Amino acid sequence: MSQPETQPRHAGLARRLADTRAFSETLCEPLTAEDMGLQACPEVSPPRWHLAHTTWFFETFILKPFAPGYKPSDERFEYLFNSYYNGVGEQYPRPQRHLLSRPGNDAVRAWRASVDEAMQALLNRPEVADEVIDLVALGIEHEQQHQELLVTDLKFSFSHNPLAPVYRPRQDSDAQAPPLRWHEYPGGLTEIGADPAEGFCFDNETPRHRQWLEPFALASRPATCGEYLAFIEDGGYRRPELWLSDGWAWLQEQGAQAPLYWDLDGDTPAYYTLAGRRPVNPQETVAHLNYYEADAFARWSGKRLPTEAEWEHAAVRLPVVSGSSSGFVDNRRFHPGVAGADSEGPAQLFGDVWEWTASAYLPYPGFAAAAGAVGEYNGKFMCNQMVLRGGSCASAPGHLRATYRNFFYPHLRWQFSGVRLAHSMEAGRAPTPTIIA
Amino acid sequence: MSQPETQPRHAGLARRLADTRAFSETLCEPLTAEDMGLQACPEVSPPRWHLAHTTWFFETFILKPFAPGYKPSDERFEYLFNSYYNGVGEQYPRPQRHLLSRPGNDAVRAWRASVDEAMQALLNRPEVADEVIDLVALGIEHEQQHQELLVTDLKFSFSHNPLAPVYRPRQDSDAQAPPLRWHEYPGGLTEIGADPAEGFCFDNETPRHRQWLEPFALASRPATCGEYLAFIEDGGYRRPELWLSDGWAWLQEQGAQAPLYWDLDGDTPAYYTLAGRRPVNPQETVAHLNYYEADAFARWSGKRLPTEAEWEHAAVRLPVVSGSSSGFVDNRRFHPGVAGADSEGPAQLFGDVWEWTASAYLPYPGFAAAAGAVGEYNGKFMCNQMVLRGGSCASAPGHLRATYRNFFYPHLRWQFSGVRLAHSMEAGRAPTPTIIA
Amino acid sequence: MSQPETQPRHAGLARRLADTRAFSETLCEPLTAEDMGLQACPEVSPPRWHLAHTTWFFETFILKPFAPGYKPSDERFEYLFNSYYNGVGEQYPRPQRHLLSRPGNDAVRAWRASVDEAMQALLNRPEVADEVIDLVALGIEHEQQHQELLVTDLKFSFSHNPLAPVYRPRQDSDAQAPPLRWHEYPGGLTEIGADPAEGFCFDNETPRHRQWLEPFALASRPATCGEYLAFIEDGGYRRPELWLSDGWAWLQEQGAQAPLYWDLDGDTPAYYTLAGRRPVNPQETVAHLNYYEADAFARWSGKRLPTEAEWEHAAVRLPVVSGSSSGFVDNRRFHPGVAGADSEGPAQLFGDVWEWTASAYLPYPGFAAAAGAVGEYNGKFMCNQMVLRGGSCASAPGHLRATYRNFFYPHLRWQFSGVRLAHSMEAGRAPTPTIIA
Amino acid sequence: MSQPETQPRHAGLARRLADTRAFSETLCEPLTAEDMGLQACPEVSPPRWHLAHTTWFFETFILKPFAPGYKPSDERFEYLFNSYYNGVGEQYPRPQRHLLSRPGNDAVRAWRASVDEAMQALLNRPEVADEVIDLVALGIEHEQQHQELLVTDLKFSFSHNPLAPVYRPRQDSDAQAPPLRWHEYPGGLTEIGADPAEGFCFDNETPRHRQWLEPFALASRPATCGEYLAFIEDGGYRRPELWLSDGWAWLQEQGAQAPLYWDLDGDTPAYYTLAGRRPVNPQETVAHLNYYEADAFARWSGKRLPTEAEWEHAAVRLPVVSGSSSGFVDNRRFHPGVAGADSEGPAQLFGDVWEWTASAYLPYPGFAAAAGAVGEYNGKFMCNQMVLRGGSCASAPGHLRATYRNFFYPHLRWQFSGVRLAHSMEAGRAPTPTIIA
Repeated sequence: MSQPETQPRHAGLARRLADTRAFSETLCEPLTAEDMGLQACPEVSPPRWHLAHTTWFFETFILKPFAPGYKPSDERFEYLFNSYYNGVGEQYPRPQRHLLSRPGNDAVRAWRASVDEAMQALLNRPEVADEVIDLVALGIEHEQQHQELLVTDLKFSFSHNPLAPVYRPRQDSDAQAPPLRWHEYPGGLTEIGADPAEGFCFDNETPRHRQWLEPFALASRPATCGEYLAFIEDGGYRRPELWLSDGWAWLQEQGAQAPLYWDLDGDTPAYYTLAGRRPVNPQETVAHLNYYEADAFARWSGKRLPTEAEWEHAAVRLPVVSGSSSGFVDNRRFHPGVAGADSEGPAQLFGDVWEWTASAYLPYPGFAAAAGAVGEYNGKFMCNQMVLRGGSCASAPGHLRATYRNFFYPHLRWQFSGVRLAHSMEAGRAPTPTIIA
Repeated sequence: MSQPETQPRHAGLARRLADTRAFSETLCEPLTAEDMGLQACPEVSPPRWHLAHTTWFFETFILKPFAPGYKPSDERFEYLFNSYYNGVGEQYPRPQRHLLSRPGNDAVRAWRASVDEAMQALLNRPEVADEVIDLVALGIEHEQQHQELLVTDLKFSFSHNPLAPVYRPRQDSDAQAPPLRWHEYPGGLTEIGADPAEGFCFDNETPRHRQWLEPFALASRPATCGEYLAFIEDGGYRRPELWLSDGWAWLQEQGAQAPLYWDLDGDTPAYYTLAGRRPVNPQETVAHLNYYEADAFARWSGKRLPTEAEWEHAAVRLPVVSGSSSGFVDNRRFHPGVAGADSEGPAQLFGDVWEWTASAYLPYPGFAAAAGAVGEYNGKFMCNQMVLRGGSCASAPGHLRATYRNFFYPHLRWQFSGVRLAHSMEAGRAPTPTIIA
Repeated sequence: MSQPETQPRHAGLARRLADTRAFSETLCEPLTAEDMGLQACPEVSPPRWHLAHTTWFFETFILKPFAPGYKPSDERFEYLFNSYYNGVGEQYPRPQRHLLSRPGNDAVRAWRASVDEAMQALLNRPEVADEVIDLVALGIEHEQQHQELLVTDLKFSFSHNPLAPVYRPRQDSDAQAPPLRWHEYPGGLTEIGADPAEGFCFDNETPRHRQWLEPFALASRPATCGEYLAFIEDGGYRRPELWLSDGWAWLQEQGAQAPLYWDLDGDTPAYYTLAGRRPVNPQETVAHLNYYEADAFARWSGKRLPTEAEWEHAAVRLPVVSGSSSGFVDNRRFHPGVAGADSEGPAQLFGDVWEWTASAYLPYPGFAAAAGAVGEYNGKFMCNQMVLRGGSCASAPGHLRATYRNFFYPHLRWQFSGVRLAHSMEAGRAPTPTIIA
Repeated sequence: MSQPETQPRHAGLARRLADTRAFSETLCEPLTAEDMGLQACPEVSPPRWHLAHTTWFFETFILKPFAPGYKPSDERFEYLFNSYYNGVGEQYPRPQRHLLSRPGNDAVRAWRASVDEAMQALLNRPEVADEVIDLVALGIEHEQQHQELLVTDLKFSFSHNPLAPVYRPRQDSDAQAPPLRWHEYPGGLTEIGADPAEGFCFDNETPRHRQWLEPFALASRPATCGEYLAFIEDGGYRRPELWLSDGWAWLQEQGAQAPLYWDLDGDTPAYYTLAGRRPVNPQETVAHLNYYEADAFARWSGKRLPTEAEWEHAAVRLPVVSGSSSGFVDNRRFHPGVAGADSEGPAQLFGDVWEWTASAYLPYPGFAAAAGAVGEYNGKFMCNQMVLRGGSCASAPGHLRATYRNFFYPHLRWQFSGVRLAHSMEAGRAPTPTIIA
């Protein structure tokens, strides 16, 4: 079968690249020129910096080494917009990214346009090296990750403004969360992790490997705001026996009394959302917990967090986008929804909130980081962080999969991160699950 | 066309107010929308915040209490743009001013316009209370102070951008600084401080009071960059015996090796200026020293800093703006110049650089702070700071006078602050001055 | 004279208790009265505090609830010497333990004696509850752990004294470390963890559970000082690609260039030991590495750290004390020795240095913390720490076993902590081990 | 009149030296061996360190340069016990002084004895250089200052022990403080400062110089605990308008609600004293205020603090030790007493509490620091500190004089520092003083 002559071999990839690049700018449309520089703490970055850094990624790892005759707009951007790649060189100090008012919004957009043009030209060439194809695929995923950060970082920065800026208006849902049920799994010798031959994955998802699981059960949906409120009202933030030692120290130091963005001072609990300040909706899936809070809530519930292997074992059988309503960024709610009914498996595993697991972020047996500077992408962070699974309302819909491993320090709360309960079953007990997985 | 009848009694004040308000916006003309939010440390504020806070001052202290029927644009601005007036209420945290992307640049300018209109209407009324007149005069001086801060804060924030943004291009001077001479003063019982009856002054300049001075001599001009370079090259930053104990601790902690903005790494010393990065001009008056550096340089020179009484005693005889060339902000150089020749008194006492004195910022004998919230303007800062005199290249020309007391913590360097030497003369010695003061 | 009839049922336990208690005081014999209060950082405690806190443990958890009519010497000690048991009550601030000059050394020893007497009386009673027996066993292990800390804490505090105090003189060894070999293990479905029915273990070693292992190899001995020196000389501390991101940040912040206590400034590397300052012995097993250093050394070696399951799988077949020479505290060297030859399994797995594993300290599947305040012993620390195995030259000889899990934050170096290399083998490859395990 | 032949020329000085040295050890008599190493913060030093450092002073500045053939006990002590003399060399880090358990108490006492012997031998020589005489006099004063610090530092360290150690029992006074009166002074051209020809003084008290004073009045005694309690009860610690800006920031950060050592939690106010925990005695002179508290109390009282010139002008006419009861350390109360009646001048100007003045610690006109390393004694601290006058219940009786300038940072409270009120009088008003000074 003949390809149309004008259709280059990598037209699909090129189109996906263009769409992804365009969506980053779409996310900035509701923002003012002033908003584009906001950075409320070293861990978050300004929207403009995200636009620039994702462009830097394509210029540094693809155009400079692979595009014949490519000339960068400004050599100094290599330093300014490097995030953490020591293999590339020194980096502009992260806490100061908000000080880069120059290059301004227009200059960054112009740089994006010129890099986009060069990328399309490169992919349009008759021969494109496999390495370039792989790096473009990586660059698309990288840009999607920064789109998610752009949204979560913006929410954090906006939350410091007493005017409670509205990023995008949102109609509140009046749906009810279904009662909590348990999905049981017999365990045994299973496999987890991704096989690169089956499609794009990050190096940290490999190698696919065997893992022994004891019988366990997983909640049919994540915890709701209402359930979390019950924990608060039961003195959850004042009872040291519910907390890990580091969590209790964090709580004492911060004076935390509720999830991030919550305000318990008024008559009814309220929180800041990207649609402005709102009363807390008890039916909604709770978000902006850190690991300590998720763990304390689980202990209070008489349960525990699932391991990442348990989570993946349950999730691998299920579609990433279930039904007509996506919990990802394409629904433009920028807020977790109310869980729907579970059926063949637990509901809302993908999207709405990242789910903290009980697993530390460590290399899988046999893991080897990718070669070169992109090898710094994942491997060097394998210490002191916990794994989260499933993606959130700020994740791109095509970006997630059951083997996807996200990771954050246990004290961080600015992601849409929630909690799904699990519990172990007696080893000898034959699982008679509500729903057999 | 004749104006006299319609000319309100306070037309002069109203015009001066309008001019001052307009100049704040003129200073922002070279800035991009993105620049308007820059804040590189808690001590400096974003340009937009300066525009808003100065507006807040008129609204809070004049329009709300005195303008009949005045309705603020947004009640929440009272909190957002209060700097440090506890008498008015709580304040938005100073280190977070850069997070106020909303209200944006246009909204702040619209607020300025509405407040300006209300102020003109108030001054246009047939009867204006003396208290209002006094507060308007204070508000003008307040706005001028923030104009100066806008410039110095911007320089500090811009300096963190490796692109070395140009605020306003500047032609380098090829003038030569004249040799250093000494102006001698016999001392005796003198008076310093301002008499409010003779024109506007801040409360901290009062009361005018007697002070005994021993014979002293004052340098004919501030120290130059070249002289300061000699101090550096003589190991000035490595010799503890030249430094105050707190200064040496500051130096060790910061790793300072030169004035702020200087870069000694290249072949020739360079610094960041508001006209971009430049080679250091040795003829130019040195700036961006803190008290410790000024004091160490003086000790290395075998001299000392003048007290504020000595400085004032010398300065009170001299015109604030000497000759055709002003060292103030109206020359739009935003950089200290080369000192001219001295004549009846020391040169460059006013403008170019603030001069550190050996005097702690303390109340004059009999000092009483103004009543009400504006009483927080000066008095509550009378601890831990040192007095500087004379104004800088960022000061408004009508703003300075011989009795004017500026004050900063001894470790701060972001002001255009320099050093003029002094020395004591033997008490018994009859002064035969080069120039008799 | 015959004892049998009067011999209480728990005489063995009572004797072991008395011996353990006495050894804590033996460890303090070389110390001056002044040494007993040393605390160089919040993480370490003064020797006197260790003597008091271990006494507190018996008084709080055993005598107060179980000894009829027991009257504490001083009720205020409950607060002063509680370490971290929130279930018992508030705690005296940890960083201030060195400020408790009162109760003094004699008072603490008197308290020890009175508690010891009450404990012996309790164990001498005709009926002793099983719970008491369990708590006494726990109290003995607890005291042994604090004996180890007493030694390592003291080394840390002493190291801040430029006089390099000698705790106990030591003859340097002239033994040679054998060449490094590899012990290979085929993996498969294994079991790890302790079964409480088989003898004392901590709750964190339970439950015994199944675990799948891929084929792996373990080094025949830990790395030596000489091998670690080669890493240093090859620029190990200057090459970011060898380090975890958090490790590189730690290194930058601390300016680390060698293991703790090392000094590279002289002609030959030297270190502070409990026998005073010594030249580094290249044959000796290297100690005082943190996790970041162990991990970077492994990466530089082209290897990795073993997981705790791998380590335990190899160790469970081996005697804890091998041959005539123990690597534990009973040899009174207070310093790691030179590894001997391996035979049926890797050498020096027990004693000399704790070995960092690649495993985060997390609950085993089905883990449940002990009930009551002693439930705070282990479980609440299961976050942000890494597992170490095998015990050190400061551990009590009867205290260790193959299932024993120690845990520290990855940045800490004051323990005798070293590194044993491991590597994965190709999954398909039939292991032809040098030595089949 | 003839001197006995065997009496060396400097026998008086030698005896005073011996007495002073002995008194340092007397002060340590109530202390246990464990107490000798206490250091609760970097600003205070352990008793043992004070004993060593004062010995270092004689060895370094006198014995090494002037005693023929003198051989130091241990050359390493030069580094260990140097406080802040950069001219001598590097210093052991101040916050770690408590880590010097070696040399121990006995070793330090032995060193003291050997230095004392060498000093007596030196003074016993037929010829003693004037420079040595001056340095011995300085060394005596230096030791007295450290005796005072030994007491105040010990109180601070002891206060961290919930057992509230008793240093020396004390009988509470039942005296009543007399009502507050005012002593008025007409001011005019006065002289302050010391003339070295008239007896020992520190360089910072010189030169004696002229100073113009406006008419003022000084309180007849310092404020009492009862008066200070009224300030607290009137919301003194909650009203920002009473505080300097830096003081309010200090208060917010520390959560201060009362003077140091006070505890308002019980039914009646209590404080920790060197005689243990006691109810606050309202008649007693209040102590342990910092400058911010003293200044806020004065503002609340509608008064102000005196300047150091005013204080000295009033004090210079009065005997340092008035009546039979001394407020100095020789009374061994280690606590401020109740003020007695004033007569020719204000009462309790000397002893009991240091009195904060409104004067920053700055060089007097014409000040020149002493030559050599002892020139670091005073001059390099002339920044950021405030002057206190009069000495406290921890000062040596022969140590004080009207010209004596003490200085501390305004936030510090661990000295026995109190407040005496002052006020200005109308310039034109002819003072009709209660008591004419």
